[in-house]
Amino acid sequence: MLHPTRDQIDLVDVMAAIGHPVRVAIVRKLAASEEEEFCGSILPDVPKSTLTAHWRVLRESGVICQRPEGRKLFIRLRRADLDDRFPGLLDLIVYEGSRAPSE
Amino acid sequence: MLHPTRDQIDLVDVMAAIGHPVRVAIVRKLAASEEEEFCGSILPDVPKSTLTAHWRVLRESGVICQRPEGRKLFIRLRRADLDDRFPGLLDLIVYEGSRAPSE
Repeated sequence: MLHPTRDQIDLVDVMAAIGHPVRVAIVRKLAASEEEEFCGSILPDVPKSTLTAHWRVLRESGVICQRPEGRKLFIRLRRADLDDRFPGLLDLIVYEGSRAPSE
Repeated sequence: MLHPTRDQIDLVDVMAAIGHPVRVAIVRKLAASEEEEFCGSILPDVPKSTLTAHWRVLRESGVICQRPEGRKLFIRLRRADLDDRFPGLLDLIVYEGSRAPSE
């Protein structure tokens, strides 16, 4: 399970990853909890097969870390890496989510 | 030719629009010139039909304004609107472009 290093994270990949309604919802949920989450608890109403594709896009772009534990998968936002590389970006995404709760 | 108003611009749409190698190159070029540009001069090596699709995505998400004049099309980055709605975002995109000139 490949994760880019902090230096390998590319802003264009991150924007493409987060520029999707389901994936931005995942990012906002993870940002709110500030903790590693069981993947099944993040967006329980979205089908698992749909989410699997989104985890991959988010992981390969460097937005999240995935950690398998037994048969479960735990997900964490790479907040420190993203804040270091792209200061203000996550704050903007979280702020816009709080302005427009319908998203 | 529909352009969203400043208030209608959605961050997720903007990220999806800019999260593409050709479109981020367009945005960086327009940001560098700070002026309205003739559409044929922005990325002269990219086929016109390809660019036409990109202008639409960038316009509909609120990243650029398109102004037809006779048979020509002029393109302008909506810098003031984007800076007002998403402070720091364009600066980040321009800065990352200057760090990684290969993109």
